[in-house]
Amino acid sequence: MAAAVVLGGPAGWWRWHRRVRAASAAMVCSRAMASKTPVGFIGLGNMGNPMAKNLIKHGYPVIAYDVFPEACKEFQDLGAQVTDSPADVAERADRIITMLPSSPNAIEVYTGANGILKKVKKGSLLIDSSTIDPSVSKELAKAVEKMGAVFMDAPVSGGVGAARAGNLTFMVGGVEQEFDAAKELLICMGSNVVYCGEVGTGQAAKICNNMLLAISMIGTAETMNLGIRLGLDPKLLAKILNMSSGRCWSSDTYNPVPGVMEGVPSANNYQGGFGTTLMAKDLGLAQISATNTKTPVPLGSQAHQIYRMMCAKGYALKDFSAVFQFLREEESL
Amino acid sequence: MAAAVVLGGPAGWWRWHRRVRAASAAMVCSRAMASKTPVGFIGLGNMGNPMAKNLIKHGYPVIAYDVFPEACKEFQDLGAQVTDSPADVAERADRIITMLPSSPNAIEVYTGANGILKKVKKGSLLIDSSTIDPSVSKELAKAVEKMGAVFMDAPVSGGVGAARAGNLTFMVGGVEQEFDAAKELLICMGSNVVYCGEVGTGQAAKICNNMLLAISMIGTAETMNLGIRLGLDPKLLAKILNMSSGRCWSSDTYNPVPGVMEGVPSANNYQGGFGTTLMAKDLGLAQISATNTKTPVPLGSQAHQIYRMMCAKGYALKDFSAVFQFLREEESL
Amino acid sequence: MAAAVVLGGPAGWWRWHRRVRAASAAMVCSRAMASKTPVGFIGLGNMGNPMAKNLIKHGYPVIAYDVFPEACKEFQDLGAQVTDSPADVAERADRIITMLPSSPNAIEVYTGANGILKKVKKGSLLIDSSTIDPSVSKELAKAVEKMGAVFMDAPVSGGVGAARAGNLTFMVGGVEQEFDAAKELLICMGSNVVYCGEVGTGQAAKICNNMLLAISMIGTAETMNLGIRLGLDPKLLAKILNMSSGRCWSSDTYNPVPGVMEGVPSANNYQGGFGTTLMAKDLGLAQISATNTKTPVPLGSQAHQIYRMMCAKGYALKDFSAVFQFLREEESL
Amino acid sequence: MAAAVVLGGPAGWWRWHRRVRAASAAMVCSRAMASKTPVGFIGLGNMGNPMAKNLIKHGYPVIAYDVFPEACKEFQDLGAQVTDSPADVAERADRIITMLPSSPNAIEVYTGANGILKKVKKGSLLIDSSTIDPSVSKELAKAVEKMGAVFMDAPVSGGVGAARAGNLTFMVGGVEQEFDAAKELLICMGSNVVYCGEVGTGQAAKICNNMLLAISMIGTAETMNLGIRLGLDPKLLAKILNMSSGRCWSSDTYNPVPGVMEGVPSANNYQGGFGTTLMAKDLGLAQISATNTKTPVPLGSQAHQIYRMMCAKGYALKDFSAVFQFLREEESL
Repeated sequence: MAAAVVLGGPAGWWRWHRRVRAASAAMVCSRAMASKTPVGFIGLGNMGNPMAKNLIKHGYPVIAYDVFPEACKEFQDLGAQVTDSPADVAERADRIITMLPSSPNAIEVYTGANGILKKVKKGSLLIDSSTIDPSVSKELAKAVEKMGAVFMDAPVSGGVGAARAGNLTFMVGGVEQEFDAAKELLICMGSNVVYCGEVGTGQAAKICNNMLLAISMIGTAETMNLGIRLGLDPKLLAKILNMSSGRCWSSDTYNPVPGVMEGVPSANNYQGGFGTTLMAKDLGLAQISATNTKTPVPLGSQAHQIYRMMCAKGYALKDFSAVFQFLREEESL
Repeated sequence: MAAAVVLGGPAGWWRWHRRVRAASAAMVCSRAMASKTPVGFIGLGNMGNPMAKNLIKHGYPVIAYDVFPEACKEFQDLGAQVTDSPADVAERADRIITMLPSSPNAIEVYTGANGILKKVKKGSLLIDSSTIDPSVSKELAKAVEKMGAVFMDAPVSGGVGAARAGNLTFMVGGVEQEFDAAKELLICMGSNVVYCGEVGTGQAAKICNNMLLAISMIGTAETMNLGIRLGLDPKLLAKILNMSSGRCWSSDTYNPVPGVMEGVPSANNYQGGFGTTLMAKDLGLAQISATNTKTPVPLGSQAHQIYRMMCAKGYALKDFSAVFQFLREEESL
Repeated sequence: MAAAVVLGGPAGWWRWHRRVRAASAAMVCSRAMASKTPVGFIGLGNMGNPMAKNLIKHGYPVIAYDVFPEACKEFQDLGAQVTDSPADVAERADRIITMLPSSPNAIEVYTGANGILKKVKKGSLLIDSSTIDPSVSKELAKAVEKMGAVFMDAPVSGGVGAARAGNLTFMVGGVEQEFDAAKELLICMGSNVVYCGEVGTGQAAKICNNMLLAISMIGTAETMNLGIRLGLDPKLLAKILNMSSGRCWSSDTYNPVPGVMEGVPSANNYQGGFGTTLMAKDLGLAQISATNTKTPVPLGSQAHQIYRMMCAKGYALKDFSAVFQFLREEESL
Repeated sequence: MAAAVVLGGPAGWWRWHRRVRAASAAMVCSRAMASKTPVGFIGLGNMGNPMAKNLIKHGYPVIAYDVFPEACKEFQDLGAQVTDSPADVAERADRIITMLPSSPNAIEVYTGANGILKKVKKGSLLIDSSTIDPSVSKELAKAVEKMGAVFMDAPVSGGVGAARAGNLTFMVGGVEQEFDAAKELLICMGSNVVYCGEVGTGQAAKICNNMLLAISMIGTAETMNLGIRLGLDPKLLAKILNMSSGRCWSSDTYNPVPGVMEGVPSANNYQGGFGTTLMAKDLGLAQISATNTKTPVPLGSQAHQIYRMMCAKGYALKDFSAVFQFLREEESL
């Protein structure tokens, strides 16, 4: 069975889903071609850049803004209209996608002095693809609603590679009747658009998946390490786990032990993949959500601490499966 | 896709493997029928009882011993020879299977005053199917070897149900050239016999799998709980995880949240399945092995503590997926 | 030896400090008597009520507000002026103390539609004694500063008992030259006023202390429990720890094991003291601060989870030393 | 106030106790002078060497053995009788002290082929000062008792420095009526001899103290680190903690933050003191005891993992307060 959201690794995640959806996605996009009105895009970084380009490829005129003017230049050449502020974008487009690095940035872009809400038009559809605290998404939604517009959270899985290839996964939260309108745009940038429920649930789904991913990755790393120390061959142990109840995505698709699988970061000195620092960020969001909802998450919280310690010990840029390396390095004695 | 060792739950684990192996297993057993010499069996408890019966069904004369004489009566009626001590068993059989509750019991049965080693014959094959500390297995192996006999560790997965149905999985450690001889007997009681490496690696494979299982089960439980509190529908969340990188056996085959799957303990008030107290025991063995080999297992150790706390809070007899219930119960305020 | 902030337990914390300071405190207060201008007080709950009364006792005219009008009645009878909103308080008083349950409440009272900032006078001194996220304190300080006023965070230690007795401890963050002005008021409600540094450091000091307190309390509880199970007499073990390097406030002043000390919650079925739910709240703040500053706090985070689990298991209202009871309850098997 | 067992650091622990005891200790020793019979000493390593010398200084003829013959030479020059095996020691002395690195060594020395028990005389007093698993102590005691002799466990606190100075602390488990006889010898090597209860409780007291010490050290390190990142001055934070409920030996006597205190390992690049690898060993013993007694020790177990990770990351030989350094190192990003 196919699988695997959330990382932009070397594997072609969601290939099966993508193939199935290819036809209908193409249809949706071409059908919409004729009457395409401009789409605003705020945040043209590593992820936003290729996403906005895919919108343009699908025939959408783009109204662009980024806090760094140089990030916009490329888009001017591509025919996009570049503006001076989020408010300006909101003045010229009634569908806007935002892709920002963190909660404070999102708050600023929406509610700041020159934020979207200063000039948002009634009935506008605002889609935030940033990965942020779901409670911030909810607050933004309330503020947007007060202006008579609609807000949806739609964080992505898949990383820069998937953003370029246009096969991101979007996890969407918001009013259900607006989902189709959001999907019309998102399907131009992704191969999978999942409706998750009310506002904030897109974020919730993403951080839940990544929390469980982190837990099972660390669990796999320490289990493999223990087995090796007890005399088991790593390939054999992986095989036994994968046909048993210990099986998980981290053991059967993204094994962290060098030599067990090919085409994964552990086979390439933990380069590429999903960086430890990004995992630590997502676990921080999970932690904040758990704290705010008073939910005990004993292993998720410990996973957060371990990735935080790894960042403090020089692993920030390595793939998150490098936790195997972090745990196993030889003793100095 | 095949899957799932280690628990004797309601699901028919290894069904696929079983079907495939059925033919050859039958062949092996019937071929052996003609010349069957007696097999010793020590430890006729919940697991040993049905295992020994399956040996008898396959035509092996059984020489039985249990520390509780009443456990042997049933076997007398089945034609087994009942003895007074492990030493007596060793005098009459040169292939012996032991199935005991813990390391101290195993040490007593092998090296005690009336233990196997008092009368073991040269060249005997001693197979221990108990789940114990791999370092104890290694010590027993050394003691057995001194007497000119052979020791293998072969702990099982599958619980009482699988023991009755004869479709246990055996994870076998020991000298490779003796593996076929061991398999001849074990295949009468199980559907899958995996060679893991030198003595102790059978135990190692089992405790490694169960440690990763415990980690991913707790991880799944806390992730599902967090998602629910953040507004996600549990079935939808499980679906998203299972097509993503958070996927694991605990999320896709044995989901701990009532209402998400049928035919699993969470659908039956956490009855049946694999008891919390047994999981705590196996995690204790993992912990001791990790301590002895100086291997850091941060989540495995935390999982151990959580199952230990659950035992202290009245969950000892519930299935280990009840950790969802343990974590989510409503606040008193 | 003196000691012990943060809890309003039965013991007379800070007694020594209080006695020493009594004279000077009295002097400060009486000197100020002559020219006393009104002081605003917002938040008249369990803590705010006795604090405001102590201000009145020291001769300060109080301008009161609480979101629940009934909370104000008592103060009308005491001669306080009751207002309709935080803004009204700010209009009539240029020194205001706020005592609120959580960050969102504080944000509302300062920056809401009828918040203090709507009518704050230039040069006003605003002291927030709520326990909240230090980053929220910093944001409030910035907003206050923009209006030409001064903000200080001054969370308290000592609970309701100490609030009544006027011997709270205040940990104060803010511009150092304003510290004396703040202390003039705070010393009427507390026996100890500690300057901690720039804005937010009052909160930081409080949550740091309570995080270490939680860790050492749980550590003491599990250590005592382990020792008892290994055959040690609890009183003897406490004595050994207390003369050794394991010594901590939780072992020598607030021992969690019934029968070891008198006059502590463990001697009274864990009633009174500092509630588990309050400790969980403070640990949540510590967790958020650690997440925001990317600081690894492996044990603090685990302590948070344990108190969160205790809340989910019916311990919310018991003193936080009840973690001993949580960990030790007998196994059902 | 006096304090502090368990580490052989730069500070002069127990100075106060030592002074008080000096007189009576001297008296006990000199009274015994007249009739001194030989004392066996097995294990002449870093600790055993100075301990045995102190026995000689107090006038006891010593019968020595060590597995490394060169360790004995020095003692021959001092007039001690050197033997070929533990059994030989037992033949010539009816009071024997053993000081060995780990449980397996202790088992070998007592029950091995040339072990003490091969030739122990009835009524002999065997005192084991090794730090080992209390359940092993209990087993040794049983084996010793069968031979008509007496066994006591008496692990020490204080390290090599204290061993040389003769001011170790002994925590003694065993039959109470034999305590005085044991103390007569131990007081020649230590300044404090504490009776803890039945056999094994000496070990239990030691590992309990060290477990709580590890927890509060890590807790202090992460709390100080968090406070510093939140803008607090480390000295001020330490002062606040030490007059509050977060106070512990690690914060007030052995602070892990460089610059806060003098004369502690953190002031000397974490050299000297109590090595991380030794702390990891003691936490491993605590873990095994907790596992065997089914006691939940969530923070003790996490502390064990953290010290284990530190060993894997090059901190094995640094003082255990280096956990502050482990947690705080700057991020690479």
